[in-house]
Parts: sequence; C-alpha cells; structure tokens
Amino acid sequence: MPTTSEKTPGDTDERAHNAPDKGAFERDTRYITDRITADAAPGDPTGPRVGEMTWPVEAGRYRLVAARACPWAHRTVIVRRLLGLEDAISLGLAAPTHDVRSWNFGLDPGGTDPVLGIERLQQAYFARVPDYPRGITVPAIVDVPTGQVVTNDFAQITLDLGSEWREFHRDGAPDLYPEALRAEIDAVNREVYTEINNGVYRCGFAGDQESYDAAYERLWAALDRLEERLTDRRYLVGDTITEADVRLYPTLVRFDPVYHGHFKCNRSKLSEMPALWGYLRDLYQTPGFGDTTDVSQIKEHYYVVHHELNPRGIVPDGPDLAGLKTPHGRERLGGRPFGDGTPPGPVPAGERVTG
Amino acid sequence: MPTTSEKTPGDTDERAHNAPDKGAFERDTRYITDRITADAAPGDPTGPRVGEMTWPVEAGRYRLVAARACPWAHRTVIVRRLLGLEDAISLGLAAPTHDVRSWNFGLDPGGTDPVLGIERLQQAYFARVPDYPRGITVPAIVDVPTGQVVTNDFAQITLDLGSEWREFHRDGAPDLYPEALRAEIDAVNREVYTEINNGVYRCGFAGDQESYDAAYERLWAALDRLEERLTDRRYLVGDTITEADVRLYPTLVRFDPVYHGHFKCNRSKLSEMPALWGYLRDLYQTPGFGDTTDVSQIKEHYYVVHHELNPRGIVPDGPDLAGLKTPHGRERLGGRPFGDGTPPGPVPAGERVTG
Repeated sequence: MPTTSEKTPGDTDERAHNAPDKGAFERDTRYITDRITADAAPGDPTGPRVGEMTWPVEAGRYRLVAARACPWAHRTVIVRRLLGLEDAISLGLAAPTHDVRSWNFGLDPGGTDPVLGIERLQQAYFARVPDYPRGITVPAIVDVPTGQVVTNDFAQITLDLGSEWREFHRDGAPDLYPEALRAEIDAVNREVYTEINNGVYRCGFAGDQESYDAAYERLWAALDRLEERLTDRRYLVGDTITEADVRLYPTLVRFDPVYHGHFKCNRSKLSEMPALWGYLRDLYQTPGFGDTTDVSQIKEHYYVVHHELNPRGIVPDGPDLAGLKTPHGRERLGGRPFGDGTPPGPVPAGERVTG
Repeated sequence: MPTTSEKTPGDTDERAHNAPDKGAFERDTRYITDRITADAAPGDPTGPRVGEMTWPVEAGRYRLVAARACPWAHRTVIVRRLLGLEDAISLGLAAPTHDVRSWNFGLDPGGTDPVLGIERLQQAYFARVPDYPRGITVPAIVDVPTGQVVTNDFAQITLDLGSEWREFHRDGAPDLYPEALRAEIDAVNREVYTEINNGVYRCGFAGDQESYDAAYERLWAALDRLEERLTDRRYLVGDTITEADVRLYPTLVRFDPVYHGHFKCNRSKLSEMPALWGYLRDLYQTPGFGDTTDVSQIKEHYYVVHHELNPRGIVPDGPDLAGLKTPHGRERLGGRPFGDGTPPGPVPAGERVTG
C-alpha cells in the first residue's frame, strides 16, 4: 500500500488562506487524510477518528469532485482517465471561480451537482465535519450515500487510484507507480512539489519583494534542472509516463497562460525552454493530458479569484497556445507513453473539455 | 515650422487620470502648448495666454525634465541625444515612481533637482499656473530663470528640437523629419500613436473585460500590420531613422518587460515577432536608443505606481532581455541609421543609464 512523503493539500481557498499580506507564502498542509483501500471491510468506514479512517473500494459509491481550473485536482482527473476509472468513480466538476467560502457547482444545471445535490462543495465538508474550519479544497472524494467528504489528500488520492482500485482499472491501464521506480519517483515528486508545483505559488503570493525575489530564484533554478533532465530523456522517470509526469504536467500547462504573467514567473515563457516545451507538447498530445486541460477555465480561475493580485478581474486574451499542438519530436528520445499498456479511449461524452 | 496632428499629452498621473473603474481608457489630452521657436524675440515669452505663447531658443535657458521610466519622455531624451543638444538644453530626471500628486526628484542628492531647486515637478507647474489642475506630466520643458513650465506638449517638443534648435545641433545630426517624408511620417505616427503607444495603455487600463478584449484585438491587428511593414524595410519610413522610429521605440522596448504581463498585451512576446524583434534589437543597438533605456526604472515605475493593477507593488525579476544585444541581421535590408550624418558620441558621464 503506497504512501507518499508529499504531505500537501489541494487548492485551498487562496483568498482566505494563501495570501499573506507580507512575507513568504506558506501553504496550509492540514487536510482530511482518510483513505479508500482494497482491504477495508465493506460498509461503513472504520478507524478512530476523521483523518485516520479507511473506507472500502466500491464501484459507484464515490464521487470525485474536481475543478478543471485547479492543478491539484487536475492530477486526479488525469489519473482517473489514464486508469479507466470513469465507470467506477463519477466526476463532479466545480466552476472555475469561487468565493471566499467555497467552490461551487455553477456549471451544472440549477447550480447543483446532479449526483450530490449540493450547490457548494462546502456542504460536503460540513456533512463530514460540522463547521469544518479549513480550506474547502478540490480534489475531494465524496461518499455519495452520506454526502460526506472522505478525503481531500490529493497526493494520496492518485496513488490509491493506482494501487487500491486495480480491480476496476481498464484493460491496458498503465502502472503509474511501478515498484522498481518508486524511490526515484518519490525523489522527483518531492522536488517537483516543493520547487515547481508550489514554487509558482510562492512567486505569485509573495507578500514582499524580498520573498518574491527568493522564490523566483528558487523556481528558475529548479526549472533549469528539469530542462537539463528532460533534454535527453522523454519522461521524468523510466521510459513511460509515471506519477511523476502526472504531477508536473498540470503546472507546466498552466505556466505560459497563468504563472508567467499572473504569478510573475517570467524569466522566460516555457515555450522558450526547448526540452520543457517539447515535453509539455508531448504530454499535451497524449490522451489523458491535453484532453483534460481547459485553458479557458484555468485562466478564468486565477485571474478572477485572486482579487488581491488582479483587482479588476480582467482575464488576458493571450497567449496564443496553438504551439501546443505542433510536432514535438520527442519520439527520438525513445520511450513509450504507456509502456506495455495502451492509451485510454475517447473521453466520455459528458466529460469533454469545452474551453 | 512643423506642427503635428498628434495632439496628446505626456505620461499623466495615471492613478488620478488614467484608470477608470469601468469602461474604456481615454487619455487626457489637454496640456500646456507653448512653443520655443527660432524666430521668437529674445527675453520674455509673448502671446495672449498660457498655451499660446512663444519662447525664444536660447542655449542654457531651459531644462528638459524627463523620467527614464516614461515612454513619452523617453522620446525627447532620444531626440536630444541624437541631435547633440546636451549642452544647449540640460536634462533633469525624475525618479521612476511618483505619488498621486507629482513626479519627484528622489534620485537627486537631497531629493532636489540641482538646477531647478525643486523636489516635485508639480512646483514648476504651479509656478506657471497656480493650482494647475491637470496631470503633472513628463516630459516638461522648464524655463530655468523663472522655474516655470514652458510646455509639456511632448509630440511638439521633439519636432521643435529638430527644427527650431538647428543652430545648436551637433555636426552630423540627422534630419529626423525630412520635408520629403513628412506626409508619410505623419501618417505612420498617427497610427503608431493611436494603435500602439496608446494601444498598450488601452489594454492595461481597460475597466472591464469587454473594453479589454476590444483593445487587445485592436493592438494586435496593428502590431501585425507593423510586423508586415518591417519585414522588408529596415526603418518605418525611408531608409534612415526618423521621428517615426523614435516614437515607436519607447513602446517596443517596454513591451516584453512591462506591457506583455502588466498590461495583458500577451498574445505573444515581441521577441516572438521576427521583424519587430529584429527592428527593436537594431534600434536598441543604435546610439541614442539602448543607451537611453533603463529597464529597471521602467519596470519599477509601472509595477509600483499602478497600485490599482498591481496592489502589492512587486516588480517581476524577468524577463531575461539578453537577447536585445544579439545580432539582428537587419543590415541586409539596406538603409543607414543616420543617413549622411553620423551617430552621436558617447553619453555624457552624468547622463549614463545605470539600470
């Protein structure tokens, strides 16, 4: 049963939690750490208290609530699709913008999630923990019968989808976290999380120039290391797509449209980094990645929600991202995206990205 | 005596005047339109009222107050240097940031302009017009004996430096507004002013999404036209540097470091437009252009002064602009920057850009 050293939450409500007036940005890393496991007894969850309970794997019981906008949620949407878990775990999608209290289901008819019957994700958190005091984050897995949040521990969610839900994987599903590569994947994930996934937020939410300058230096040093790593290897670890690539991609695909300008991560665009740009295009063109990416919702989320960074809420019309669809030439580095497996089939009709 | 169809002011105090809460940005175009002319009688200015008076050309009498940060002032600094007027008209430089009332001389010892003896440019405006009600803008030409602003009509200032001050031009000074090309220069200037110089502000200061979207479309349509125009000609008009190039350059050199992110002019970076990027590098490497460009002060100005766009006042550390110094290959298009004239010599020691 894999665990992770990456103890982190999802995309918290940034206006409430992530935007210090001064000094460096630090992410709130407390969250609901229950797990869904293959060996848990059927029926009610067991365990001493919230955060330490286990729930049984059961097709049709849980709903993954994500948002196209959120990079932490994006990981889970990618993995669910790569593994073919669409029929086992349904997907609810929150709207790209939210207020200080909660993500909401404004994209759904009547502004209500059709399965959970709630308007605000906060309701599922409160169903689990009355007056839940922390950020209402996506991704969250919700127990449909009770409407309660089971877990919002996104780092663990993708690992458990890979290991605990094997019974429901599609034929040809890849092993995103192969035993032999776990030590290397864990090491890469630690670096990618602290320096890249969170590094862009550290730039954007820095409360003063000194903190920003330090964050910028640290981010670009890490991007330079990644650029070098990806110059002669097609994927981050091994020669197939792994959990490591899944965790890096959501940040990279948001880089030029959001982090470059909005978070002032602007030494260059990612499109000016040959290896990273080729790697991003390669993944973007791989089923599971580009077809789960909604740039419109991504831009709307950041530019509208972060009032303290962009008071007028105007969303830039650029950049032109047509380049994402151009040939990347990364095949010459060898590797096969799905190894001995196969790519996922078409995106189910109800889940297609429109933006 | 050339006049101009470009009736526009300098960089007004944007917090007071340029930042509507809603709707489209419109520049305040009222200003002090006195002129300094070669045929004016020595001594006091003559004319019926402020804005319609003429002052005599007289070496050592006037001080050009500019700011490295301001694109409208940058034009005048370039032209003064190209024409070799440094000894005839001294240069005062306001600090990159200013408050709601005025540009100030915070870069000078004691925060006081050493020639005018004032701390705030507002004092020179008030000396001319008590309680002067409009924006305190640079560039402004100040009459040193009285400390009064003569003119802040930047579009006319550069033309008059070219025509009225010929007596004091250096040997080899270029003709930036040659008779035979004036109609074409005027036409290009009109387009560059409304669509580019002001077009970037229209994007940045749009008060709502609809105004921004329209401004963005209009800006990029114009940049596409310029890209095409500059593909097979080295300069905008004729085969030497003219007033038209002087007016475009300050916007282009600010594009990637400021307008791209801060004003959301982000379809692409200018460095992704081959002709414009080559043209910008060509000018940047020409005496009078790059050597009057202070990117640090430019970035500080925009990102600190526009509190309504960037509340935390954090200045991005990017982009990397090393590319400005790379070979541009534009010589193949023919043309000579200074025609039958010569480039200006080294920048006077006290006027060197440090940022």
